[in-house]
Amino acid sequence: MSSKSVAVVSIPTGFRFSGVACGIKASGKPDLSLIVTDRPVRAAGVYTTNQIVAAPVVISKARTPSATIRAVVTNSGNANACTGQQGMQDAVAMTAEVARHVGCDPEDVLVMSTGVIGHALPMQKVAGGIANASAALQADTDAFLASADAILTTDVGRKIVSTTVTIDDQSYRIAAMAKGAGMIAPNMATMLGVVLTDAPISADVAQQTLSAAAKISFNRVSVDGHTSTNDTLLLLSSGEGTPLQGSALDQFQGAINRVCIELAKKLVADGEGATHVMAIRVTGAATESDAEQIAKTIAASPLVKTAITGGDPNWGRIVSAAGYAGPKIEPAKTSLKIGETTIYESGSPKPFDAKQLSHWMKATEEIEIHLQVGTGPGKAEYWASDLTCDYVRFNSEYTT
Amino acid sequence: MSSKSVAVVSIPTGFRFSGVACGIKASGKPDLSLIVTDRPVRAAGVYTTNQIVAAPVVISKARTPSATIRAVVTNSGNANACTGQQGMQDAVAMTAEVARHVGCDPEDVLVMSTGVIGHALPMQKVAGGIANASAALQADTDAFLASADAILTTDVGRKIVSTTVTIDDQSYRIAAMAKGAGMIAPNMATMLGVVLTDAPISADVAQQTLSAAAKISFNRVSVDGHTSTNDTLLLLSSGEGTPLQGSALDQFQGAINRVCIELAKKLVADGEGATHVMAIRVTGAATESDAEQIAKTIAASPLVKTAITGGDPNWGRIVSAAGYAGPKIEPAKTSLKIGETTIYESGSPKPFDAKQLSHWMKATEEIEIHLQVGTGPGKAEYWASDLTCDYVRFNSEYTT
Repeated sequence: MSSKSVAVVSIPTGFRFSGVACGIKASGKPDLSLIVTDRPVRAAGVYTTNQIVAAPVVISKARTPSATIRAVVTNSGNANACTGQQGMQDAVAMTAEVARHVGCDPEDVLVMSTGVIGHALPMQKVAGGIANASAALQADTDAFLASADAILTTDVGRKIVSTTVTIDDQSYRIAAMAKGAGMIAPNMATMLGVVLTDAPISADVAQQTLSAAAKISFNRVSVDGHTSTNDTLLLLSSGEGTPLQGSALDQFQGAINRVCIELAKKLVADGEGATHVMAIRVTGAATESDAEQIAKTIAASPLVKTAITGGDPNWGRIVSAAGYAGPKIEPAKTSLKIGETTIYESGSPKPFDAKQLSHWMKATEEIEIHLQVGTGPGKAEYWASDLTCDYVRFNSEYTT
Repeated sequence: MSSKSVAVVSIPTGFRFSGVACGIKASGKPDLSLIVTDRPVRAAGVYTTNQIVAAPVVISKARTPSATIRAVVTNSGNANACTGQQGMQDAVAMTAEVARHVGCDPEDVLVMSTGVIGHALPMQKVAGGIANASAALQADTDAFLASADAILTTDVGRKIVSTTVTIDDQSYRIAAMAKGAGMIAPNMATMLGVVLTDAPISADVAQQTLSAAAKISFNRVSVDGHTSTNDTLLLLSSGEGTPLQGSALDQFQGAINRVCIELAKKLVADGEGATHVMAIRVTGAATESDAEQIAKTIAASPLVKTAITGGDPNWGRIVSAAGYAGPKIEPAKTSLKIGETTIYESGSPKPFDAKQLSHWMKATEEIEIHLQVGTGPGKAEYWASDLTCDYVRFNSEYTT
């Protein structure tokens, strides 16, 4: 599934962009992305919870939240993960190289990497790319798109979201980009994502806002259940003036939530080999975190994923996945709907037209699955891709 | 992969067997298996930990451990799971029907079912099958094989193990059967398995022995990470005389462990669509359960599985899976070997001949992966199948 975005981007003031090809990718596709700010901005980040952490994550994590960030540099095609001391030196060198061009402190540059694990970065190519990208910086839509394209790896399509939100008669812009495709089961953040805004918020508020949004967006999507070593989601705010607070801040949080959910769903729709998205809604659990765990387990089951691939209403796989997810469920009060069709009600199967439902599933891109697991107040939504031969083919031929 | 077993079975005394086709499977293949004992025997069982539990599991679980079991009836082609009150009535009726033919108390009959979830059993066909199977009971190898074949579903090959163990100059026989193929990530037991012996042990000792063996065999294999609703593993002992104890019992435990590990590995080798087995050994963890959790996470990652499918030494996927498994690891003391090749040592990549290793992986049926995650005493072995297009194809076309 390709996700075609309309190329009208509402660019927040204070940011310039570029994306170039520097030769990390053998294909010659863009692989170095640069975002530079006109003045120091507030920046927040959420990062992978994997204990095997890529060097750029270590560097960026130590530098956020911050009120003085000047640039974000990202390379694709090489994750700079599991690369030992050399990897740490290379990540630091990338930020120093950008700082030299921008004329700022290296500590005020954030860095992200994505691609294959375990190979040293070709630093001479990277330095050349940073020089070219620094010379190409622009504040327009084309430059933003070039920057968004240069962070992609196995993605079929570009992943951007932009919006303008009006709060207390004042308009603020939000523009965001992400990359996804494989090794997607973020836990605290996704593969790579950057959200930019000109709404005035402090670095601490940016951190709180981003963490809250990540929890219900990027932390609720899965392609293959494999949490990456490089997951990074950044929020940069260039807004000047009195920081938002009270209900204005609540409205801003709502806007960031919507942007992050839309961006996260784009990762799933463009999951490696994906032909359908499952939108899994679990209700009736004891707590929200129980509901999330159940939805996540359903999303990760290869048996559920392949049933969705085949447009097969093999509902026993969904109900049984809930049963081994961990949180307590009430089997006699468990009910399941696929789309508008109730299939299982209070622990017993309900007759349904399997042929008709299968036909609907095959023709529908986003398939809603609603599982009620009891009578508790806990509920959660989760989005996941299906599992196809293309996923298997692609991932059995990735490095060799 | 098909697992061809040599058809010389060492049948323990006191058991008779049969397997017939009664029409549950549209294919006309055998679908009703019966084991009847000459006298009451000791029986133990371990069962699925899924909260969605099939009716036959509820019935058999309530009846073990026991010192008076007379029969085990199993149908394949229908799991009798998620079938509400009707399912419970049908499971009880199956044991009553067997009891009528054997001439015993219905409470002394155990029942197992495997197949598709959510459909009522065709009870008239099942009753006919029980009558035919009762008439066909024999104590020989052919009857044992017929019984073992009638519990299979999507399995390519029959799964049996038999051995004779000599303890204190006395010979005891052990014969075991299992079915596997899909929805395999047992937790406490596997899909279906029966271990028979004529060694003299009490029902309580049988239970302890079986639980200990399941923990390091069936609980350490995975095809697709999906814990079934029907997992059941039974141990039946017909042995008379003084029960084994002390070092004799230890030797018997060792024999049961070996039989269970061999049987569990047969499930993996015949996993749906499987072309390779991963034998994952994790060492250096804080505890055995930490090591098991890490091995299980590696085994479940679609990215690791597809790399193995492709003979691709994409080792970053293995190391990063350990990083999100949960238990604490020491990244700087993490090392990885695939077969005899060291690829990653103390947190840094080690040069290796990727082409040569890939060639070896493609040609090797059981690929050993040894991951050291620190310097702790915890270690565990785990076996899993790879993930192929055939798995996806098969499971996207199962019910419709």
